[in-house]
Amino acid sequence: MSGQQRKRLYIHEVATRDGFQNEAAFVDTDDKIALVDALSACGYAKIEVTSFTSPKAIPALRDAEAVMHGIARAPGVVYTVLVPNVRGAERALSCGVDEVNLVMSMSESHNRANLRMTREQSFAQLRDVIDAVRGTGVAINVSLSTAMGCPMEGDVPAEGVLAWMHRFADLGVHGFTLCDTTGMAFPSQVRDLSARARERFAALQLTLHFHNTRGMALANTLAALDAGIDRFDASLGGLGGCPYAPGATGNACTEELVHMLELDGYDTGVDLAAVLAASARLPALIGHDVPSQILKAGRRSDLHPPPRADAGDMPAQRAFS
Amino acid sequence: MSGQQRKRLYIHEVATRDGFQNEAAFVDTDDKIALVDALSACGYAKIEVTSFTSPKAIPALRDAEAVMHGIARAPGVVYTVLVPNVRGAERALSCGVDEVNLVMSMSESHNRANLRMTREQSFAQLRDVIDAVRGTGVAINVSLSTAMGCPMEGDVPAEGVLAWMHRFADLGVHGFTLCDTTGMAFPSQVRDLSARARERFAALQLTLHFHNTRGMALANTLAALDAGIDRFDASLGGLGGCPYAPGATGNACTEELVHMLELDGYDTGVDLAAVLAASARLPALIGHDVPSQILKAGRRSDLHPPPRADAGDMPAQRAFS
Repeated sequence: MSGQQRKRLYIHEVATRDGFQNEAAFVDTDDKIALVDALSACGYAKIEVTSFTSPKAIPALRDAEAVMHGIARAPGVVYTVLVPNVRGAERALSCGVDEVNLVMSMSESHNRANLRMTREQSFAQLRDVIDAVRGTGVAINVSLSTAMGCPMEGDVPAEGVLAWMHRFADLGVHGFTLCDTTGMAFPSQVRDLSARARERFAALQLTLHFHNTRGMALANTLAALDAGIDRFDASLGGLGGCPYAPGATGNACTEELVHMLELDGYDTGVDLAAVLAASARLPALIGHDVPSQILKAGRRSDLHPPPRADAGDMPAQRAFS
Repeated sequence: MSGQQRKRLYIHEVATRDGFQNEAAFVDTDDKIALVDALSACGYAKIEVTSFTSPKAIPALRDAEAVMHGIARAPGVVYTVLVPNVRGAERALSCGVDEVNLVMSMSESHNRANLRMTREQSFAQLRDVIDAVRGTGVAINVSLSTAMGCPMEGDVPAEGVLAWMHRFADLGVHGFTLCDTTGMAFPSQVRDLSARARERFAALQLTLHFHNTRGMALANTLAALDAGIDRFDASLGGLGGCPYAPGATGNACTEELVHMLELDGYDTGVDLAAVLAASARLPALIGHDVPSQILKAGRRSDLHPPPRADAGDMPAQRAFS
């Protein structure tokens, strides 16, 4: 890889929104601010800071304004927030966010379960948000949940996803995130949907958002790279998850993603050591272990001393293969 | 994928050898036999049943003869066993195994730690085994540990691995397994080493053996497929591991591997439902949970009923993405 220009990728951190919203424990506002400030020094292209949803719906993120006002913005980092409706958009705009992230599901059943509306109701509500934000200079991204499978309906046809993208693109949004909400995407599907979305929406920012529910997050990332995708959501420590897969791991883990991509010769812009230091602080904040494998096993480059035969720490002959 | 001929892949199950050797609890001989018999009905190309190592070195597998004599052989399945030396080979041959699997490390430090010998000493010992087995009709496979990275030395040059393969090929072995013993392989490296090994040893059976220590097992599998590899080791439930990464997941998990490959349109020959039923029995045998994500989250096709608004099980509006 040396001597060659490394391809630049763009990593978005979603732990403080998509991760924390899923936690039983309330993370103190000061701790959230300190974590986002630490993440701002890690080299991410974008940080999804919080969510301007109803404090009753997501009490874990009831301090959205305080967090947005408290963080120190790093130059070059896009600070985005989730916004479900016009009220949320007004709150977000009052905090000077760089981007609002809207969300709806690509399957009717999941949209009803996740957002308590039909997809058409969601679209109408998000159209009002887009009308309120367009022209303010704040970017608009739309996250399309269950874009690669619905835990209630199964397959989600790619043509349907692309049709919803066209409707949003016609409203003037700036980007899309294709979300594998419950870890149902598989590589050939990712390659196909990514290629078609890129072809049809070449002028818009396109991000892939994987979950590791069934172990495929990094394999799906490779497939998306094959199709020319260069932006990925990921969550510190692998935080976040899905209510339909209790016990399974959640979002693609930032440190696992960056670790693989850097080994493979990509320039993620992300400082893996700084990310690992931030990830190591998570268990104290949320009160439980995180799924991150790199936090447990270390980086590939973290070598071990050979066991010393004379010091009694020589393991038995085990024939590990 | 319908209408198209699916590419045939060959899956080798290693849990009862590479997994059980790593367990503190002794699994009863009858339970081992019942498990292997269940695995024999799953459609694997090969099952690594046990290890003819010294009972003192690996007491968990001290019942190797009883297991080999107790199992019912299924037609079409290759039953292989690990053999460290001529004594082990004699024991294995007396049980009528189909294949012996020899192992040495590609890095000096790991070979000393794992096998308590220099690599040259290992090669000399394995040459004696090959001399004893050649001509008996029993196949000889060589597993090359740390072929994609050593936890003590770091990088393991591909040229060195290929040089060892040449020395073994000259002795008349039938196949090689390239082992990522501690989960240090990354996709571009796998693609490169796999392609070069295939090119140089086109007539020999070539298997890839991944660990998921740093989350890359399935991504590395995709990379190996890119290079034309069609044989993979995997371990039921993800059993097995590495003493240098406590707490990290171990071998590539059979059900995660088969689940992805079948979704991607490959014909693994493996009955995923039967594998999952076998995997579900593991915790009772070994006394702890296994890393398998599919066992926790279910298959992609295992759908959930939508929550009913009138039954009180409607989750709060959470905006999962």
